[in-house]
Parts: sequence; C-alpha cells; structure tokens
Amino acid sequence: MGVKDPQSTPAKRSRPAVTPPPADGAAVETDVSSGRYGRQPMNQSAELLERPLHRVQELTAAQDGKQCFFVVRQQQFTVQALLAVGAETSKQMVKFAANVARESIIDVEGVVRRSPQPIESCTQQEVELHVTQLWVVSASEPQLPLQIEDACRPDTEEPEGVQIRVNQDTRLNYRVLDLRTPTNNAIFRVEAGICRLFRETLTAQGFVEIHTPKIISAASEGGANVFTVSYFKSSAFLAQSPQLYKQMAIASDFEKVFTVGAVFRAEDSNTHRHLTEFVGLDLEMAFAHHYHEVVDTIGNLFTEIFKGLRDNFQTEIETVRRQFPSEPFRFLEPPLRLDFIQGVEMLREAGVEMGDEDDLSTPNEKLLGRLVKAKYDTDFFIMDKYPLAVRPFYTMPDPKDGRWSNSYDMFMRGEEILSGAQRIHDAEFLTERAKHHGIDITKIQAYIDSFKYGCPPHAGGGIGMERVCMLYLGLDNIRKTSMFPRDPKRLTP
Amino acid sequence: MGVKDPQSTPAKRSRPAVTPPPADGAAVETDVSSGRYGRQPMNQSAELLERPLHRVQELTAAQDGKQCFFVVRQQQFTVQALLAVGAETSKQMVKFAANVARESIIDVEGVVRRSPQPIESCTQQEVELHVTQLWVVSASEPQLPLQIEDACRPDTEEPEGVQIRVNQDTRLNYRVLDLRTPTNNAIFRVEAGICRLFRETLTAQGFVEIHTPKIISAASEGGANVFTVSYFKSSAFLAQSPQLYKQMAIASDFEKVFTVGAVFRAEDSNTHRHLTEFVGLDLEMAFAHHYHEVVDTIGNLFTEIFKGLRDNFQTEIETVRRQFPSEPFRFLEPPLRLDFIQGVEMLREAGVEMGDEDDLSTPNEKLLGRLVKAKYDTDFFIMDKYPLAVRPFYTMPDPKDGRWSNSYDMFMRGEEILSGAQRIHDAEFLTERAKHHGIDITKIQAYIDSFKYGCPPHAGGGIGMERVCMLYLGLDNIRKTSMFPRDPKRLTP
Repeated sequence: MGVKDPQSTPAKRSRPAVTPPPADGAAVETDVSSGRYGRQPMNQSAELLERPLHRVQELTAAQDGKQCFFVVRQQQFTVQALLAVGAETSKQMVKFAANVARESIIDVEGVVRRSPQPIESCTQQEVELHVTQLWVVSASEPQLPLQIEDACRPDTEEPEGVQIRVNQDTRLNYRVLDLRTPTNNAIFRVEAGICRLFRETLTAQGFVEIHTPKIISAASEGGANVFTVSYFKSSAFLAQSPQLYKQMAIASDFEKVFTVGAVFRAEDSNTHRHLTEFVGLDLEMAFAHHYHEVVDTIGNLFTEIFKGLRDNFQTEIETVRRQFPSEPFRFLEPPLRLDFIQGVEMLREAGVEMGDEDDLSTPNEKLLGRLVKAKYDTDFFIMDKYPLAVRPFYTMPDPKDGRWSNSYDMFMRGEEILSGAQRIHDAEFLTERAKHHGIDITKIQAYIDSFKYGCPPHAGGGIGMERVCMLYLGLDNIRKTSMFPRDPKRLTP
Repeated sequence: MGVKDPQSTPAKRSRPAVTPPPADGAAVETDVSSGRYGRQPMNQSAELLERPLHRVQELTAAQDGKQCFFVVRQQQFTVQALLAVGAETSKQMVKFAANVARESIIDVEGVVRRSPQPIESCTQQEVELHVTQLWVVSASEPQLPLQIEDACRPDTEEPEGVQIRVNQDTRLNYRVLDLRTPTNNAIFRVEAGICRLFRETLTAQGFVEIHTPKIISAASEGGANVFTVSYFKSSAFLAQSPQLYKQMAIASDFEKVFTVGAVFRAEDSNTHRHLTEFVGLDLEMAFAHHYHEVVDTIGNLFTEIFKGLRDNFQTEIETVRRQFPSEPFRFLEPPLRLDFIQGVEMLREAGVEMGDEDDLSTPNEKLLGRLVKAKYDTDFFIMDKYPLAVRPFYTMPDPKDGRWSNSYDMFMRGEEILSGAQRIHDAEFLTERAKHHGIDITKIQAYIDSFKYGCPPHAGGGIGMERVCMLYLGLDNIRKTSMFPRDPKRLTP
C-alpha cells in the first residue's frame, strides 16, 4: 500500500493512545469541520467502498506533506496525531477529538508532516499526523479496567511514583485489553511460528498430519487426573494425550504421523508451568532398527524450530525482550544428548544426593539445566535412557540393562518440554508390563489389542507448545503464552 | 535410496498379503536356510544398524537380477514374492514362510527378477522377488476380524459368490486394520492436505494462527447440545465452536486469525454427516468497509484448497475413486455467489413450495446443489444474505432490509460446509438482539463485555474439515473421513 489517492482515501482504523488537549470555550453555532468528524453509524456493511485504508507502519518521512490517513495505535505501531483549531478545524471538532475514549477504534484522515524532532514515544518517530477528519468506528467505554500503557511497562523499570503494574489476574480477566500490547501481539505470533515450523519440518520429511479424538471411552493410563464428560446417557473422558491414536496410526501403516491439538490434565497444580488444557505437538514414527532414529528426528526438529524462530521472528523476539528481558536462546547443532546417568553424575558433582534410578525433581531439573548450560553452552538438550521404574508401563525396557529404558525427555532452559519413548509394540509383552505395574488389563484391552495384528517398532513424543514458547522467550509463566489459559482456578474468559 | 550394498542390507519392513504355497514333507534334520529366516526377537533397539531398508515402491525392472530387499505390501504398494525349495532354501524355511500370518510385519532379503508377464494384482507389476531371507518383525494373530482384501473391494463390483464387503461398524471396530487399505491411506493424506492448504493460504495473507480453549465456563449459545465436563469441584462445558475466542482476538487487534481444532456437539443425530466431535477450520477477520471483503477471502480460500488438491493429490484422489467412484469436483474461479432469495427462487422454479424467509431443509439444500450444478457447472457455491430470523442472535442484520442478514453459508455438492456472518461488534446492539432472541443476558455477559472497549467490524466462519474431505472426494459417510469418529453411539476405539 502507498499513499496514492489522498483525496478519496479514508484513514486506517486505529485506537487513540494519545489524545490532543481539549479546546476551551463554549460551542459556537457554525462548525467549519461539519462532516469531517463524529461517531460513525455502526458498520453494518451498508456500502461497498473502494477506498483503501493505510497502515500506521507505512507512515514515514517519504510521505512528508502528502495528505494521508493514519492510525494512532495499530497493533505494535504508533504515530503522533495533531489536531488544532484553525480555518478548517472547528473548536467543536477538537473538543470531540479530545473526548474520544481511549481504546476506541477510529478512522482518521490527515496530512503526514516531518516532525521537528524525533517522537520518541512512538514507533513512527520521524513524522506526525495533522488530522483533517476523525471518525469513531467503535467507541470504548471511558473507564478501562486496565491501561494499555501500564500493561506495556517493562519488567526492568523500577516502579516509582505513579507507575503501575498490571497483575496477572487482572490481565487475564480483561484479556481482550491485555492482548493489545505489542508484547502480547509478538508472543502469539512467535507461538504461531512454532506450530508452523513444527508442521512444516515434519511434513517435509513425509510425516502425515492426523487428528485424534479428545473424547475417549477409557482413561488409558489408569484414570488419574482425567476430566469426566457426560456423554448422552453414559460418561466419557477427555484425552490426556493423543498417544494411543498416534500409535494406532503407526500400526495402520502410516509410518510417520504428527498431530496438533488440545490435551487435558485434571491436575490440581497451581504452578507457573501447569495448565489444565494445553496444546500438544505430538509425533510418532516407525523406525527401522533403533529408537535413536526417532530421537535424532525429534532433536533435529527442535533445531529447525529454533533456527526458524531466530531467522524469521527477530522483531517479535526483541519486542518481547524489551518488556520481559531474557538471554538469547542458545542451542547446538546437532543437539546435545546425555544419558540419564550422566545427568545424575553432573548433579552429584554439584552436591546433589540421589540414587542412580531416582527420578529428577523439578529443582534438580532446573539445576541440571544450569550445569549443562555452563558446561556445553546450550539451553536445549536431550536426556536419554531414563530409569525404567519411573516411566509408564508401555515404555520399552533397555535390552542390555533392565534398570534403564528406551525413553527420553528434552529440556529447554532446564524445564521439560518433551517426554517420549520407544513404545512396546508387542501385545504380549505389553500385557506383561501392564500387569507388572498393577494395571487392570480389562481397562486397557483396546490399547493392547491395537498391537495384535502386526505393528512396526516405533517411538515418539509429545511437546507442550505453550512451554516451548514460554521457555524460548525466557518468560516466567505459562499463562503468558496461552491466549486464554485454563488452570484449576480459571475457566474464563 | 538405491540398492547399493546387497550383501549387508536387510529387507524393508512389510506385510505379507500373499503367501507362497506350503511345502510338503516332514522336517529334515539339516536346514540349509538356517540363519536366514525366523521370528526376530522383539525390537528393543538393541543395535544401531547402518543398513538401509528399501521400499516396495522403488522396485522396478531396473533392479532386475540384483539382489534386493522388499516389501510384500507397504502402504499402497505391493510386490509379488517367491520362495522355492532349492540349494540355499530349505523345506523348513518355505514352510515357515507359508505359515507367517497375514498382516505380520516382515523384513525380507531377496533378488529382484523381471517377471515373465505383468503381475496385475500388484502395484509393482514388472518384477517379482526371489526371497533369500525372511524375518518376522512383528507377528499378527492368525485370525483377522476383517480381511484387508475385502476392505479394499470397490463399491462398483457386484458382490458375487464368496465376495465379501466389510460393513462400516466392523471397519470402525477394527480401525487399525481398516486404515491399512490404500483408500484409507489416501483419504487421510488428502485430509492432511486440506488442513495444510487452509493454513498456508491464510498465513500467506497475514492471518495469525491462534489456539482457543475447549473447556469453557458457559455455553454461549444458550446451552443446547453442549457436553458437560466435571471441572474439579465445579462443572464446565465443551466448546461448540471457537467463535467467541476468535472474536476476542479480533477485539484484541489481531485483525485476521484462524484456528484448527476439535469442536463438540452433543447432538443426538445419527446421520451420514454428523459427528459429536469434529475438526473445525475457523477464521475471523476485521474488515474495512463491508463484510463481502471477508466473503471474498473465504471464497478464494476454498478455490486455493480445491486447486491445491487437484494439483498435488491426484494419485490419492484416483486411489479413492477406484474404490468409491465419484465425479471429479467442479469449481468456478471466482466462486459463484447467490443471494438466499435467488436460491429460494431456483427451488420454487423446481416446484418447491416455501416462504422467502424459511430456512432450507437438508433435502432442499441437496436439490439446490443439483440445480446450481446443472445451471452453473460448479460443485461449490456461496449463499449470502440469509433471513435474519433463522440465524443466531449475534448476526448483523442487513442495514437495508431487516428481513435479511449479513450472513452466508457455503456448499459443496449440495451440503453445507461453512456457516458464517458479520458479527455484531457493538455491545449495546448485541444486548438488544440477545434480548430479542429471549436469551438470558447474564449468561452471555462475558461475551458482550468483549466488545465494550472498541472492536472493529468483523466477520468469519467455521468449516467442518471432515465434511470438506468427504464432499470433495464424493464419499457417502463422514465416518470415512474421521480417523476415529465419534457419534452418539460410538466412543471407541
């Protein structure tokens, strides 16, 4: 878009972040601005107009002197607008403009002028807009439950005097306002990028996207932490993962599959990294000889995601970092892979007391992340060969040492973002392992039966999408990367 | 892949669809084939082998005489394998091979020979495989609940003698076998293509992918047909559509958004086109002047999907058509758009009696599809300006004639696949319209409040993904395009 036909072009829709000072004096009878400002009738698509709107982002000194149309704030872009009483601008119009509530949607016509000095508070620093028409498309209530300005304030600034922060709950209660900040706009663009890179990387390797049901008849892992749904005259559950269905697709000769979708955990965990509903990026893959073929595929997938974000989302990453400072995300190519026991040894060297087959606590995972970062300079690594005892019943044991298993977790900045394993593809052995875990076989019979008609050896994993976004951007709470988060205490908006 | 190092390369994993005749005679003591056949130990990833597996698809006469490794059936590809008692092949080995259960996974080593005449029953018609080693990777149970051969039988063939069809319920009960047919393999590749084309087309136009919660606190459209979930000590609902959240994203300045995810309908409809859980391809978009900007965007999106399928999925489409014959899908560019009243008039001309503002019944939609096809030669069209009375309360009325509304449905082969509208973006007017519909305002207050702080005019729609796939391929039942369908009577597998 350019500024081609200034006479017939209306202003681009925008929100007034800054309003001009109100005019003094009583209303006069004649209004030289009549027909150039006001509240537009609610748009009901009455007319098919051929008038393009211009974007704030496009306003630069190249348009100096041209008549143009602008946005005060449009997504992450802002421009200063001016309105002064004069030959064609009435007091009434200036007064009207001054009274437009913040966060209303406006269409504006104006002239772009090079500003005498850079306007540091705006993204379009070299120009300002001299308003000739101003129309309110959608008025906001005058009282806002939170100020966008406050919601934008960097974490680095020390609060002083009137500076106000907006707490997480207020943000989430009024998410429709909170999401308007440039930071939130950027976070969710990065998140969309993660999903896209996940899918594109796997599709290029011959993976097929599938969709798996969220309503299931039985809780495959024994029924803990599962939401119950009333299903006509019976009841059902919400799937905690698409794992059974990914595995069935493998048993059905699809070879390599992925799926992106909601997963549900009825866990009463009120932490910075747990949600009751989140987006799973899941994959499953048949392999020829060894599950490390799959581990390598997943490791390389993360490398592609990290490179894609670094190369294509630098503006968004910097926008987020201005409000929430973080160190750039470091990764190795190929990724670092440690055995579980190596991780344990690093922790012991750092003074942690633990047995070879103890699972890692969350603080120990964090500590290990710091040790790995110090030693290998990477924020991402793979930990392989977990103790069999700490993994689910369907995990394939290590054939050489029964203490270990063919399973792995992957970490970003010391937090787990993927859990995966070679799955047992033999119905008989799966039954044996389920019994060993004290699981009622009748409840998982359908799962076991899926492997009775021939199934290739396979492995896979599930990635927590919001966690990847949170940890890549170095954010402190998963609610920052879930557009409408769900936790034990939050179901709205 | 090629056939580079025949001595050290194992065969590609496959399933025996055809087995050689069993050998006569009793077992002898010496076995010249010893070490070249048998049941492999369960793969526990014991060894990291560097031996590539070859694919059935690659076996052509170019490999004539070379030693090679093959698949009997691998996804949609099949090859004939031979095993005869000889200098290096024992009776025991032939007997073992004859007894491998159908649908087992096998790795085979063999020599590719040009076949004396084309093998019409296989996809690799010009070659056959002379087996030198045969290993069972994963054995199937000998008794199969359905035969893949039966599940593959074209709809066109008249059943005669022993020919057996597999009914829908048997297919779905043993989906892990049913999905192995080339037709099912093709259907779900087409479906993955639809999702990819949807996302890529919109992403290229600046749409941002979002994720919306499936667990919601209130049923926005009054509570009918909603599944209830127990949520800790309280209860919640499963979202019938992501609409509220898409609209909130628009009110949050995201301008253009899409989302792909599960939607839930607790409707006790047992028809060929209803599921209780399906995948919604949803989009929402702010517009400058008129909702037809959005209608055009969606219409063009469908054009891109149809072109993408036609150009990139011809093999899959033909595979499906061999089993389930259908006419190629016809579409116009740009798509045909009719007003609702024009559709009514076409129906009246065909003898249907109905009022101007009556909604279309399903049979009338079907009939209209046929009339449109006959007149305009298109299987896709848009019907615009539905009667206000038959649309939900949040639909924007037509500003020029209160009988109509700024809403539209889109059709493929006479069945609705998208419903959409300009939504009311004004909180006050939305309240008025909800009251007019007799809706309890307190139950939708959160929805109304989303529009209180300024919201651009916007429109959007939701596409039923499985329906698009079913209708594009001319299939007769939506359960054919849902990998693990859910309906009032089916919750498994």
